[in-house]
Order: sequence, then C-alpha cells, then structure tokens
Amino acid sequence: MTGVDEKECDPLELLTRVFKRLPSIGPKSAQRLSLFILRAPDDYVRAFSQALERARTRTRLCSLCCDYTEEELCPICSDPRRNKKTVCVVEQPTDLRAIEKTNEYNGMYHVLHGALSPLNAVSPADLKIKELVDRVKKGGIEEIIIATNADTEGDVTASYLMEELKGLGLKITRIGTGMPAGGELEYTDPITLTRALSNRKVID
Amino acid sequence: MTGVDEKECDPLELLTRVFKRLPSIGPKSAQRLSLFILRAPDDYVRAFSQALERARTRTRLCSLCCDYTEEELCPICSDPRRNKKTVCVVEQPTDLRAIEKTNEYNGMYHVLHGALSPLNAVSPADLKIKELVDRVKKGGIEEIIIATNADTEGDVTASYLMEELKGLGLKITRIGTGMPAGGELEYTDPITLTRALSNRKVID
Repeated sequence: MTGVDEKECDPLELLTRVFKRLPSIGPKSAQRLSLFILRAPDDYVRAFSQALERARTRTRLCSLCCDYTEEELCPICSDPRRNKKTVCVVEQPTDLRAIEKTNEYNGMYHVLHGALSPLNAVSPADLKIKELVDRVKKGGIEEIIIATNADTEGDVTASYLMEELKGLGLKITRIGTGMPAGGELEYTDPITLTRALSNRKVID
Repeated sequence: MTGVDEKECDPLELLTRVFKRLPSIGPKSAQRLSLFILRAPDDYVRAFSQALERARTRTRLCSLCCDYTEEELCPICSDPRRNKKTVCVVEQPTDLRAIEKTNEYNGMYHVLHGALSPLNAVSPADLKIKELVDRVKKGGIEEIIIATNADTEGDVTASYLMEELKGLGLKITRIGTGMPAGGELEYTDPITLTRALSNRKVID
C-alpha cells in the first residue's frame, strides 16, 4: 500500500521510497532529497517529521469554511473582526492563502477542495458545495465572490455554483478577468484579451 | 534555524515551510507537495514521518566502509560472501547503490562522502580518506578500485587517493572505459557501469 517495506534496513533506500511517492519527484530526485535529509541538521529533520505527524493526526477541515486547521474553526472563521457577510469561494486552500497575501480582503472564505471536471471524474458531490449551500441557507451571508480559476474547470464550477445559489437572495460576483499586472498586450493570449475587452470599464 | 516556527498553527503553512527547505523545491512545489500530504493516505504519511525519524535517530556511518547504516557494520561489510580483498571507492552512498544494481561486483566499498573541490572548499579532511588509508594499513586488501565521478573533482580525488595509497603494496585501478566524459556515476546506466568495472586499468 505505502510502497514502503518497514523491514527494509537501508535508511537511504527507505527515504528514497517515500520521497518517490511524492508527485513530480522521480527516482533521481528522491535519492538526492534522501541524501540531503541524511546530512541535514537534526532539528530540521525533527521539524519535518513532526510537521508530517501534525498533518496526519491533528489536521481537520474547518467546520465552517472547510480549510485545513487544527481547531473546530480556523483562525479566519473565528476572527470577530472579519466581515461575515461576504464569502469568497476558492478551489484550493492555497488559493485562500494567495488572496490573504493581498491584505485587501476582510471577508470569509469557502474552500471547495477542487473544481468540477468530468474528464477527471470530479462531480459536485466530490466538492464542498453542499456545505456552502447549507452555510448560505443558515443566513447572514449577503455576497458570494466566486474566485475559482480562470480555466475551463473553474468556469464550469462557477456556472454550477451560480445555479445552486440563485434564488437565495444573494449578490453573486466573480473576480475580474483580464490583463494581469505587468502583462504585455503583445504576448497576451487571445482568450485573455477577449475577456479583457469585454470586461472594459469606463474611465472617469 | 529550521525556518519553522513551532507555534505556527496553520498545518498547510507548516508543511510548506519544511518542504521549501529541500533542495530544488520552490515555494509553489512546496505548496503542491503539502496539499498532497494533507490528502495522502494516513499510512503513507506515517511511513514518511517514521522514515525521517529513523534517518535522524538510528542512522550512522558503517565503521568500515562509511556508508549509511543502522548497525555497527552495514549489510555489505558484514556479508561473509563478499570478497574482502577488493575495495571500490566511491564518492556518494548513491554511487555504491548504482554499482550494486549491476550485480557484477562482489567486493567491498568505501564511501568518501564527496570529492575534493578547492572551489567548494572541500579538502581531504572533509572526506573519509584517512579512514580508507587506515583500513588499507590494517591489511588484507589487495586491490583498490577508484570509482569517483569522471569529472574534474573525481579526477582530482582519484589522483590524491593514488598518492596517498601508493607504496602500500596495492593494485590500484580506476574504472575507465564506458564512462562518458563529464558523466556522473550516480546517473550512469547499469550496463555502462558493468563495462567500466570490467575494463578497469592498472594505474602506473
């Protein structure tokens, strides 16, 4: 199951096997990372091992936003200073952190843990969509900002969410699409340019 | 020191920080690997954590060949079927494993844990060269096969070893044909390595 034989006595081989199971880590990288670990400072390897144990034993999903946390509610959901009326819906926990880094958003979040993808057999039941609808029905939420990726899966997911949430008296928005900051028009792909054109704004 | 704040409560952030300290793992890869861990089967994450703990607490250098092991002597050094008269000197523990995979070599090994490199401030005292000389002086060894990399550091290391070992009544050879110029032993395929071993030449 784990691809790791516990009785294997060679520490380098054992490490290589666990590293090799990580995505995009091949056999050579796994060996290199294993040698790094065997030569790394004791406190770093201990911290690494403990981080894995914490991830395994103490991590759960926040009962409100479904982000990873160690408490019943994550720090954002339990922060009284956050605006509870606005919920930003993202695909991944990493997307939430990307938005937090802007320091421009003070509302709540909801993590779907993926996007709808018929090709990869990801259906609505695989995502935290029911949890979002239940959350909205409990009341108190005025705006849903859909911040799924600007790709096909993200678009399909956004459309599905709009269908699920309409009729619940919400303002539903989606984050703007167009030219990225620092983007050069010459090198911008046609789809992005098409969206940027259709999303044009009047300059006062 | 570890780049990891133990009090940091976000399990995803904590994992990302430890992964980011691995060589050639950037911030984006670290996030991706962390998400993988949070979604991975429990027994895999446990095996990973335990492999790290074993590497930290139970791994030492074999008292004879200096390879990583959990015993006083590594399995190869304690194997009575191996030919004790021949010692193959390699730079890294991964090089030893590459040669073992050829199934063509039945002698012993000596792991230097690096190669001489004035540019990187690696001097003879940083390598397990004294251990090799001491081992030879104890007697019983008839041939030393120098299997350092076929690059500048490997060549310099081989020359240095020859100087250190000459006059001790040894046959000193170096793996020769088969290795491409500038090639690294760790990444050489088993057939090429087999040829290099069988085509070794006496160094005058």
